[in-house]
Amino acid sequence: MRVYLDHNATSPLRAEARAAMIAAMDMVGNPSSVHAEGRAAKSLMERARADVAEAFGAVDADIVFTSGATEAAALACAGRDLAGAAVEHDAVGAWVSDALAVDAQGAVTVDDPHVSVLQLANSETGLLQNVPAGIAVCDMTQVFGKLPLDFMATGARMGLVSAHKLGGPKGIGALVLRRGQEVPAQIRGGGQEMGRRSGTENIIGMVGFAAAAKAAVRDVGDGRWDRVAQLRNILENGLEAASKKTIFVGKVASDLESPNTGKIDRAGRLPNTSCFVTPGWKGETQVMQMDLAGFAVSAGSACSSGKVRASRVLTAMGFSPADAASALRVSLGLETTEDDVLRFMDAWAGKLIKHEARAA
Amino acid sequence: MRVYLDHNATSPLRAEARAAMIAAMDMVGNPSSVHAEGRAAKSLMERARADVAEAFGAVDADIVFTSGATEAAALACAGRDLAGAAVEHDAVGAWVSDALAVDAQGAVTVDDPHVSVLQLANSETGLLQNVPAGIAVCDMTQVFGKLPLDFMATGARMGLVSAHKLGGPKGIGALVLRRGQEVPAQIRGGGQEMGRRSGTENIIGMVGFAAAAKAAVRDVGDGRWDRVAQLRNILENGLEAASKKTIFVGKVASDLESPNTGKIDRAGRLPNTSCFVTPGWKGETQVMQMDLAGFAVSAGSACSSGKVRASRVLTAMGFSPADAASALRVSLGLETTEDDVLRFMDAWAGKLIKHEARAA
Repeated sequence: MRVYLDHNATSPLRAEARAAMIAAMDMVGNPSSVHAEGRAAKSLMERARADVAEAFGAVDADIVFTSGATEAAALACAGRDLAGAAVEHDAVGAWVSDALAVDAQGAVTVDDPHVSVLQLANSETGLLQNVPAGIAVCDMTQVFGKLPLDFMATGARMGLVSAHKLGGPKGIGALVLRRGQEVPAQIRGGGQEMGRRSGTENIIGMVGFAAAAKAAVRDVGDGRWDRVAQLRNILENGLEAASKKTIFVGKVASDLESPNTGKIDRAGRLPNTSCFVTPGWKGETQVMQMDLAGFAVSAGSACSSGKVRASRVLTAMGFSPADAASALRVSLGLETTEDDVLRFMDAWAGKLIKHEARAA
Repeated sequence: MRVYLDHNATSPLRAEARAAMIAAMDMVGNPSSVHAEGRAAKSLMERARADVAEAFGAVDADIVFTSGATEAAALACAGRDLAGAAVEHDAVGAWVSDALAVDAQGAVTVDDPHVSVLQLANSETGLLQNVPAGIAVCDMTQVFGKLPLDFMATGARMGLVSAHKLGGPKGIGALVLRRGQEVPAQIRGGGQEMGRRSGTENIIGMVGFAAAAKAAVRDVGDGRWDRVAQLRNILENGLEAASKKTIFVGKVASDLESPNTGKIDRAGRLPNTSCFVTPGWKGETQVMQMDLAGFAVSAGSACSSGKVRASRVLTAMGFSPADAASALRVSLGLETTEDDVLRFMDAWAGKLIKHEARAA
């Protein structure tokens, strides 16, 4: 029986999303068509848009559906010469400088929010940022669906979100625009999404995104991630007991977090994420060993080619390249059980002993 | 009982696509992840890619999955200063000049294929083009799945295709690149799609595209569109009998077409498409009247706002703006029955009589 502990990479499709998507498969029309079939498709799409907006605390903002957060990042950032930090996701980092300073705790100092991007949480470490009001672009992908989040309250001008991180389908996300913000269209043609993003709309994806977002926000409200945070803490305490030299990124700070209050504090982390560095034991090797043992986890950073390189998130925080390449990320989900965590701890500790025996 | 005759706008999801998509919903991993779940997702995705390539006659080309043909058009055309004609779809037209001449039969003259774009078929009229070998970009969206098509044999450097026109889901398509062709990535980040198009992949969409493409090519091979062409001809003959002043765009030429031989001839049309101009009766009005009568059809051109304007495809062919605004497009599907067509003819003829009585 496999144990999936890589929810920050992607999370399984929620039952609610699955059901909504299957129902939407019967929808015949193109939302751009004026006949009844087109209007029905458009109505379904606008219902999905409203649901995502409500779940995201963005009913007074515009939801521009995109093929995912990566496209949303390009739409928000390309050609704008924004300042960012080295801890941003590659999809954002591709478009911004890495001029903003990162301290040893992973905190980014923003000089001028209006020309800067800043993530709400880091996908590798789970570390949260205190995002200043007025930030030009904020990547909220990892927080949406894991912690209470109100887009309007963040003060961000634009937000990036993705469906598949919260149990929706892959291939759909959104750029959220505070009213008055505008972006030049990059994908042009039919003028869909109010001219911001052309192309016949991915209705099945939108509907799945909306259903997943509603369910995710309900689960956040029910405090279900508190239990996940407890499991994550059990995991870290267990691993720490097994390996004195392992460094848990942000662990001390995370004692201050309070996922159930909804407060996003710079000192906190996502409730589900543990990133830990075991000097001398490559993350890539750990991923493969744990995979063979039945656990899906990831190294600090993975690019699409499947190769693993030293995490630039960790090097930006002051880790040496060698240590940064020795990071493992474990990211739990709502369905993760205590047994999953205990089995992982056992397996990891066993592999560590073998690693140390070989290294000795 | 509604009759859907707007298949060039979008076609209902095929049963094969639906089943494949539902099966893919159980796939947990991110294709960029190196663990077993990630590899399984990647394997499914690459199977879909291979299936689309085979269906499209492009096994020796690269399939770059995009969010649809509109994104593929931007990826292929943006920043290249290519020449095109006014009959191109807006998604292509947004990026190219309309310098290429269009004659009264809708045929485009290409001066230099290497710096030009040309569609294989027009979505409004169904008119086919003789696309010269070496064309820089060819929009094959309307032909793929309706006529035999071998990408490599067309000689095009790049091809644009969409899933939802052939019974796949909306929100997925591809840019097909002949080997040696390259495009600068517009959506950047994780480096997916061999660096040409980043973002976590829409696996459910890809799988649906592949299943639909396989089924569509099977149906083309089985000659199922011959019957559709016969129905289209019955429709046009019936409408012609009811309205002597109605002009059927490309009808004479279409007598020369032979959809069952696979020959794409400049004189031909798509087997399912009828575009006809009834001077003095606005296409927009016809669409609404037919909608109320239970039929989904479209005017010559529709933009996403739901407003209808005079078709620039028809004006490029020499129609006056008033006549171009009086066009109706009827596009049949494989499930269209003779009864559907006969009922449409009756209803349309009845509305025409009322229109003429009012206009008199």
